[in-house]
Parts: sequence; C-alpha cells; structure tokens
Amino acid sequence: MDTLQAIFTRRSIRKYTEEPVTQDTVHLLLRAAMVAPSAADQRPWHFVVVRNRDKLQAMGRRMEGCEMLQTAAVGLLVCGDESLEKIKGFWVQDCSACTLTILLAAHARGLGAVWVALYPLEERMRVVREELGIPDNIIPFALVSMGHPDEHLPGEDRFDASRVHREHW
Amino acid sequence: MDTLQAIFTRRSIRKYTEEPVTQDTVHLLLRAAMVAPSAADQRPWHFVVVRNRDKLQAMGRRMEGCEMLQTAAVGLLVCGDESLEKIKGFWVQDCSACTLTILLAAHARGLGAVWVALYPLEERMRVVREELGIPDNIIPFALVSMGHPDEHLPGEDRFDASRVHREHW
Repeated sequence: MDTLQAIFTRRSIRKYTEEPVTQDTVHLLLRAAMVAPSAADQRPWHFVVVRNRDKLQAMGRRMEGCEMLQTAAVGLLVCGDESLEKIKGFWVQDCSACTLTILLAAHARGLGAVWVALYPLEERMRVVREELGIPDNIIPFALVSMGHPDEHLPGEDRFDASRVHREHW
Repeated sequence: MDTLQAIFTRRSIRKYTEEPVTQDTVHLLLRAAMVAPSAADQRPWHFVVVRNRDKLQAMGRRMEGCEMLQTAAVGLLVCGDESLEKIKGFWVQDCSACTLTILLAAHARGLGAVWVALYPLEERMRVVREELGIPDNIIPFALVSMGHPDEHLPGEDRFDASRVHREHW
C-alpha cells in the first residue's frame, strides 16, 4: 500500500476476526518497529509478543476501556528501557515513533490495530507488569492490539488550518 | 512509495539541494501530520512552517548540532499544547506520532528530512521560542528539517532478536 494512502486511511481498529496473524507478519512488524528513529540512535526499546488468548483476555478484562484485547490475535507490547538512553529524557518519543511505525506497517499489511496507551497510567502499567512479568526497571509503554479487521472505518481528513502558523507564531 | 519500503529506507537526511519544496507538498505533510493518532483524539498540536532562510540559518547557528537547518528548504515546527489535552500526560506521545508521520510522508514524496529534537532540551527550546515567537503556554517539541536530499543513505536492518520476548518477559 502507498505510504500516503496508509497514513490517510489508517484508523484505530478494535474489532477482529478469528483469522490468525502469521509469525512472518509479526516478524515484519518488529523489524519495522526497530528502524524507527530514536535519539542518538540508542533504540531504548524492548518488545513482548503476546498471542496467548488467556493473557490477552486477562489484560482486556482487568484494564478499563481495553475490551478490544479480548479478541485481538496478537498484542505487541512496546517497552521503554531508560538504561539504554545515552541522552536522557527521550525514551517516550522513541517508543512513540516505534509504536506508530507498527500501526502503519500493520495497516499496510491489511491488519487492524489500535494503540493501547499504558504509560503514564499507573493502573494499566501495573496490570501489564503482573500479567507479563515485566521487571521493575522496564516500563510497559504501549500495547498494540491487532488482528484481521472486523470493522472498516473510512479515512478522515483532520486538517485544521487554525493550527498552522506561517514563519512565526 | 510502498509503506514498508518507506519505513525500511527512511534515513535521517541532513544535506539538501537548493531545490525548493512546494506549498502543495508542505500542505500534504501537514494533512498527514494531523491524521496521526492522539490520546482520546484530542490532537494537542500546532505547527509553524518556516521557509525564511534567515530564521532557519539563525536557528542552525544558535543550536549546537543543528547545522542542517542552515541549508534546509523548510523547517516544520511541531508544538505541543497541554491545554488541548483531555487526558493529561500524553502530548509528547501525540506529538511524536505526528513528527514520525511527517518524516515518513516526506520520505515517500522524495524529500530528505531529520527530526531535530527540541523538548526537553531547555536551551534549544529557548532559541526556537525567541526566533519564532512561540508563546509561553506552547511547547516547541521538534523541528523537522527538510529539503530535496543531497545525500543518499542506504536503508538499514536494525532487527535485534535480543529485544524480542515471547508471551512473557
């Protein structure tokens, strides 16, 4: 799929069919995630690929507003690791770039996905730590819930001229 | 350009030709930026399009490590606005998704670009505030330096299996 088309037609997809997501596709998404730009190219991230239905359902049940996890084929957890930062204070930006890359790559491959925010929501982070055994020094940043889409939402044009300034504020 | 190809071949480009970037292209990049996902779809962002050579050179001169701005055709400033957040604490993630979208769209259109980090670097933020008149309640987040590329860097495969965990940390 064309890049601009992917950007303009991507939507947050929360309903999935039973069709599994292949290992090859997950590998491709991880490769894509890891070429995202990061501050001083330090790549302060880790990933947990969750396919276990019980775990996905437990997280979906225990975190408010996360019902989509109950039917997700895969949950791709993006974690931040501050110890990998050379210049401190950028891991959130780096992990965000990483997460968006996964969303666009997933959409381009015909999957539906949604960015489930974890950080800085203490309660959601605690649940994910417990369910997936995330150590204290690693920060559960975002969980990408994905599967083959069972809802089809049209692209939106959200251009807002009032947010654009020319040369000077 | 295909989405996966764009993701895998994008590199940080810091050298640009004299060729100008059209208004249409800048408009397309702004439209792309504004469809990036944001927490609760609150879109807590503003943009300043800087084409003025004196301003770009002044910022390039005054900020260490930002020489690329001196030959950039356009500087696209992404700003955060905390007052637009319904759920507090997500504007950095939202602006990061926005910035990465601009980088991928620019690359797909044949431009070269690089994410010049501003936030949370106090000195860089101060310079940009001064040069572009950014008000105190608005946060200069990142400046995308771009132009037609005058360097061509090969794509890299940065996949690192040691960062991938299966089902559980």
